[in-house]
Amino acid sequence: MNIKLSPLAPKKPKKISCIDGIRISITHCGLKKNNKQDLVLIKFDKPSKIYGVFTSSKTPGEPIIWNKSIIKHGKVSAILINSGNANVFNGREGRESLEKIVKNLAKNLNIEEKEIYVASTGIIGVPLDHKKIIKKIPFLVKNLRNDPSTWLKAANAIRTTDTFAKIHNEKSKLKKNLIVNGIAKGSGMIAPNMATMLAFVFTNAVIGKNFENYFKRIVNSTFNSITVDGDTSTSDMVLFVSVEDEKFKLKKQHEISEFFFMLEKVMTDMCHDIVKDGEGASKFVSINVKGAKSNLEAKKVAFSIANSPLFKTAIAGSDSNWGRIIMAIGKTNISLDPKKITISFGKDVMIKNSSKTEKNFSDICKYLKKKKIDIYIDLGISSGSATVWTCDLTKNYIKINSEYRS
Amino acid sequence: MNIKLSPLAPKKPKKISCIDGIRISITHCGLKKNNKQDLVLIKFDKPSKIYGVFTSSKTPGEPIIWNKSIIKHGKVSAILINSGNANVFNGREGRESLEKIVKNLAKNLNIEEKEIYVASTGIIGVPLDHKKIIKKIPFLVKNLRNDPSTWLKAANAIRTTDTFAKIHNEKSKLKKNLIVNGIAKGSGMIAPNMATMLAFVFTNAVIGKNFENYFKRIVNSTFNSITVDGDTSTSDMVLFVSVEDEKFKLKKQHEISEFFFMLEKVMTDMCHDIVKDGEGASKFVSINVKGAKSNLEAKKVAFSIANSPLFKTAIAGSDSNWGRIIMAIGKTNISLDPKKITISFGKDVMIKNSSKTEKNFSDICKYLKKKKIDIYIDLGISSGSATVWTCDLTKNYIKINSEYRS
Repeated sequence: MNIKLSPLAPKKPKKISCIDGIRISITHCGLKKNNKQDLVLIKFDKPSKIYGVFTSSKTPGEPIIWNKSIIKHGKVSAILINSGNANVFNGREGRESLEKIVKNLAKNLNIEEKEIYVASTGIIGVPLDHKKIIKKIPFLVKNLRNDPSTWLKAANAIRTTDTFAKIHNEKSKLKKNLIVNGIAKGSGMIAPNMATMLAFVFTNAVIGKNFENYFKRIVNSTFNSITVDGDTSTSDMVLFVSVEDEKFKLKKQHEISEFFFMLEKVMTDMCHDIVKDGEGASKFVSINVKGAKSNLEAKKVAFSIANSPLFKTAIAGSDSNWGRIIMAIGKTNISLDPKKITISFGKDVMIKNSSKTEKNFSDICKYLKKKKIDIYIDLGISSGSATVWTCDLTKNYIKINSEYRS
Repeated sequence: MNIKLSPLAPKKPKKISCIDGIRISITHCGLKKNNKQDLVLIKFDKPSKIYGVFTSSKTPGEPIIWNKSIIKHGKVSAILINSGNANVFNGREGRESLEKIVKNLAKNLNIEEKEIYVASTGIIGVPLDHKKIIKKIPFLVKNLRNDPSTWLKAANAIRTTDTFAKIHNEKSKLKKNLIVNGIAKGSGMIAPNMATMLAFVFTNAVIGKNFENYFKRIVNSTFNSITVDGDTSTSDMVLFVSVEDEKFKLKKQHEISEFFFMLEKVMTDMCHDIVKDGEGASKFVSINVKGAKSNLEAKKVAFSIANSPLFKTAIAGSDSNWGRIIMAIGKTNISLDPKKITISFGKDVMIKNSSKTEKNFSDICKYLKKKKIDIYIDLGISSGSATVWTCDLTKNYIKINSEYRS
C-alpha cells in the first residue's frame, strides 16, 4: 500500500544545529526492507544527565522494561534506536535479545551497560533478530559524526509509517550555541501490529536540581496532551538528555525562563507534528477547555472530545455539530452545570450559557473547512484549564488500518 | 444520503404476541419528514410496575431528567415516545415543552402526571415543538389498540437512522400467555446531532420484591455491555414495565428461572440488534474475557478492546492482528501478568502464555472473514469474566458520520 504524505506535513523539515558532545551514526541492518535505514546510535562524549517518561501500558516492550530499570542511575552514554521491530511480547527471547545487544554495545564503546538506553519500534510479537543489530555495531561506532545531516538522517531512520521526519531545533538568543534539539516518530500504527511514539530531546544547558519535575510537567502538557485514536502504545517513551556544557550554566531568571520556553517549544512542535501525521489526518484540531473545577477535569473533557469518533468524523465533514461536543462533555465523570457551558468554533461562539447564539451558519462551515481548527469550551465553574491536540477521523484512517496488508 | 440496510440485519422482524392490558397507538406529528410515523403512545389499563436505567451523561435530555424524578413512585400508566427531536440542551424552554405535553396527556387520559414517562430521540439543541405533539394526543388516545401490528409499527416509529426495527418476544413454555416483549432503537447517530439508545421491555408476569436488583444486573450484562463507538448518548434509557396479571404469579423456582431466562433473552437479542445496526457495521464481534481479577476488570479489558479503533479496523480488514489486542489490554489499569495471557480467534488459539502458537494463518484469515466473530481472552489470573459485544469500524462509519448532510 502506498502511503501518501500527510496533507498537514510541513513544507520542509526544520534545519537543525549540532550540539557539541553528541555524535550520531545511522545504518541499515535489515529490520526494514528495501535497504531503508533502520538503526541509529547516539553517543555522548561523556556520561550525561537523562530523564525519561515511559508508556503506562501494562504490556510494555522490552526496551521500556530495560530503560525503566536503569533510569535511577540518571546517566546515559549511548542510545540505540531500531525501527522495524518493537521487541514486544516475545517472551524470554525478547529480553535475551536486548541483553545481548546492550552487552555488545557496552563492550564496543567501552561504557557501562546501565548507561545504554534502547528504543525499538515496529512489529509486535516477532522475535527481534539481535544478530542483525550486533553485526552493525562496529560500523555504527566507527561512523559517529557530529553534523546536521546525521540528525535529519536519524529522524528519518526512526520512522516507521510516519509520512515525514519530525525534527525540531531552538537556539538561545541570550547564550550563543545553547541549543535544544528534538527528533520524534509518530504513532503511525500501520503495518502489522505497529505502534509507538518515540521522542528524544537533547540540550547542552546545565540544568538545575528541580529539573525532573519541570520536565514531567512539560511532558504532561505536550506528549500527554495529544491523541490520534485514543490507543496507547506498548513502547511509547520520551527521553531527555543534557550533555551539560559548563559554558551554558543558567544563572539568571530570564535565562532559565528562556531555556524552559525553548524546551517546551521543541516538545510542543514535535507533538503537533505527530498529530499532523496521524493516520488519515486532514485537519489539526486544538481543543481548549477552561472553567473546569481543576486542570485534571479540564483535560478529561478535552480528551473525551478529542477521542470521540463522532466528534472526529464531524470535523472531517466540516460540520458544526456541537451536539456531539455536548455528548462528549456529558460522558465524562466531572463537575458540570450544563447551563454554564460555552462552546466556540474559532472566534464564533456557538453556545453561550446553554443557549444557541445566532451565528451565521455559512461562516462557521467556512471556518471548519480550514486545516487548523480551534475549539474552545468554557465550563463556567472554576479556573481549571487544559489544551489537547488531535486530528480528524477520515476514511483514510480506516483504509490505512484495515487494508495495510494489501 | 441513502442509508442502506445493515448487512447484519435479520431476515425479517420477529413476530410478536400481544400482552393483555397494554394498548398502543402510533401517528405522524411532524417531527420527522415525509409523513413518517414519529409519535408512539403506550397505555397500560391499570397503573403498572416500572423500573428504569438511565444514561450516566452529565448533559442529559429533558425526558431523562423528568423520568428520573418520578421513578421513585414506581407506577406507570403511559409512555409517550417521539422521534425526530431529542429535547436535549434546549434550556428552560425544553423543560416547559415537556411539562406542557405531560400535563395535556394526563388530562386526556385522566391519569396522574407522575405516571407518565417520556422518551425523545433525534436532534439535539433544536427546541421541541410541543404543539405538534399535543395536537395529536386526542388522536392517539382514541386509537389505542392491542394487536401485533401496532407493536411492529411502534418499533418502526421510534427508529431514527436505524436501518431495521428492533423487536423481540419470548413466550413461556410453562405458563401459557406469559410473555416478555421488547422494542428498541439503536445508537444510529447519523443526522445532525442525533443520538440515543432506547429500549422498552414489557411483561405480564407478577414480579417479586427483589426484582429491581436483578433487572439492573441484566442491564449490566446486556445494555451496558455493548459499544459501537464508545460514545455515550444524552438520552439513553431502558424501561421495564410489568402489568402484573394475577394469572402469572411465579411461585416455583423453575418458573422464576424461566422468566428471568426469557427476560435476559429478549434484552440480549435487542442488544445484539443494536450492535448489528451500528453505523457501517459489517461484522458482529463478541469479546469474551475470563481469568481476570474481578468481573469489573474483565469488563474493562473487553471494553478497551471493543472500543479500540485499531482493533476495530483490523477486524474490518479480516486481519488477525493480535498485537492490537495486546495493546488494548495493556492500556487498561488492571491486574495483569503479560506472561499468562491467552488469546483465541474462534477456536484457534493464537497466543498461549505469551507465546505465539503455530496456527495456520490462512485458516484464521478465513475465520475472520465471517460476519460473526468470537474473540476469547484468558488473563490467567483469577476467575473474573465478562462479555462485550461490538462491531467493526469501516469506511461506511466515517461516510455516515461525516457526510450525513449530503
